[in-house]
Amino acid sequence: MSILVVGSVAFDSVKTPFGGVEEAIGGSATYFSAAASFFAPVDIVAVVGQDFPHDLLSFLRQRDVDLSGLQTVEGRTFRWAGEYEPNMNDRRTLDTQLNVFADFRPVLSDRHRERPYVFLANIDPELQGRVLEQVAAPELVVCDTMDFWITGKKDVLMQTLSRVDVLILNDSETRQLVEDHNLARAAHKILALGPRAVVIKRGEHGATLVTGDTYFAVPAFPVLSVTDPTGAGDSFAGGFVGYLARSADTGDDGLKKAMVHGSVMASFNVEDFSVRRLEMLMTHEIEHRLERFFNMLRI
Amino acid sequence: MSILVVGSVAFDSVKTPFGGVEEAIGGSATYFSAAASFFAPVDIVAVVGQDFPHDLLSFLRQRDVDLSGLQTVEGRTFRWAGEYEPNMNDRRTLDTQLNVFADFRPVLSDRHRERPYVFLANIDPELQGRVLEQVAAPELVVCDTMDFWITGKKDVLMQTLSRVDVLILNDSETRQLVEDHNLARAAHKILALGPRAVVIKRGEHGATLVTGDTYFAVPAFPVLSVTDPTGAGDSFAGGFVGYLARSADTGDDGLKKAMVHGSVMASFNVEDFSVRRLEMLMTHEIEHRLERFFNMLRI
Repeated sequence: MSILVVGSVAFDSVKTPFGGVEEAIGGSATYFSAAASFFAPVDIVAVVGQDFPHDLLSFLRQRDVDLSGLQTVEGRTFRWAGEYEPNMNDRRTLDTQLNVFADFRPVLSDRHRERPYVFLANIDPELQGRVLEQVAAPELVVCDTMDFWITGKKDVLMQTLSRVDVLILNDSETRQLVEDHNLARAAHKILALGPRAVVIKRGEHGATLVTGDTYFAVPAFPVLSVTDPTGAGDSFAGGFVGYLARSADTGDDGLKKAMVHGSVMASFNVEDFSVRRLEMLMTHEIEHRLERFFNMLRI
Repeated sequence: MSILVVGSVAFDSVKTPFGGVEEAIGGSATYFSAAASFFAPVDIVAVVGQDFPHDLLSFLRQRDVDLSGLQTVEGRTFRWAGEYEPNMNDRRTLDTQLNVFADFRPVLSDRHRERPYVFLANIDPELQGRVLEQVAAPELVVCDTMDFWITGKKDVLMQTLSRVDVLILNDSETRQLVEDHNLARAAHKILALGPRAVVIKRGEHGATLVTGDTYFAVPAFPVLSVTDPTGAGDSFAGGFVGYLARSADTGDDGLKKAMVHGSVMASFNVEDFSVRRLEMLMTHEIEHRLERFFNMLRI
């Protein structure tokens, strides 16, 4: 089964205690598809400026990621700059330049409308809604969001959520969205808004899956040397949706296994800056880590 | 297999957004043994003052908890008072009166020296070490500690750790003990100090088990109504050590199952103030929740 992702392709400038990169390739759609492409075909819908050298994405093309939906328009590509604290969990945004992303209006081709798995990366919920109006009959819609949209566009986000199967967000956003301190109760309130599953990202603590019947957690796969956490959430989503698209098992059991795949893909991503690790990653490395992780988690 | 616990029996005054209690029964040894007694015989070694009405512990006696090691000495019982923030995760200590606990010098009877499972609750590492010197040939020693001792008595704590099988502490204490921000790496550094397993408590995020070969996490069992988190860590330890003592399976598989038991016992404890919920708890309720939780966690 193939996946449609709508999100950003960007230049990231990142500083961590272990070094940094200037204007390296980033963006939610980039990280997501780099991770998901190991499991299923992916189509990207995104926008870049004329300053974007398309050969930066040649590693995705080699993995059969379809870039026909990557528009190039006049102007500069989306740029983000951030710096991580020594604990590698907290980060400060130093600069955000939406540039061409400010006027992004995703228009899906016939090919894109037919994709059965859809990942709405963390973009304006109005755009997420516009994408959902265009897709024909998706089998599974997974949506990411953040505090910025919960604060600024809650009504629109709520409308989008009513058409979403799985919502991915972090723990403080879970509380914020339904105004409840108790995470378990908050997750159930979100289920009442439409999604049949909520994935709560907890950074270094891993992630929790909540459905009507289950509550399941994966730790962050233990990486002894974290170099750059940027893109961890989108790599997680890539492994998560990628596994679901490959297995077509979207019941609770499938969702649990998807959590493990998500955690493993995120664990690779944080080992180097930008998408470097995902770019060099080999299938057998993923399989090896998945096997280790499943063994660790089995009881 | 039977368990020896050395820790505190105290009066706690607790305020939460949902109410409060004044001078209710508390203390690490109390919570621990209330939880562990569902799985294995427990002997308590602790101290109280003359102001302590021993019938407060009659529910433990009814569960065959041995209280022959509970000394009553002249003076007042240990008192603690605290208040929880609306998020129920952060708390402020309002008052600590060590009272008779300040001069506590645990002396084990012949009976206590022979207990095969030992839980050293969160007390001065010097006392923990003194207990370890007295036990004959323990099969498993589990030790709790906290930032206060890591800051104030690190050298003594390190000596104690060299004789401990499982160390339980929270995430920030894990980092602090070995001065490493990366939790996975920090846990492995702790393994190098002696313990063959580290249990990292993460509050509402659950807990993580790290051994030389495995990395396993349990979420906090989802409780929709948390009334008072006091004693959650000690109830967790009670379920954890209780399961190990009952099963005598202290390999990685047993430790994983023990984590699930710990999380379930903590989840009951937080449903009411003091030990009220553990006092009223029925075996079939535990079995029911364990079965649900194991089903949730299985992949």
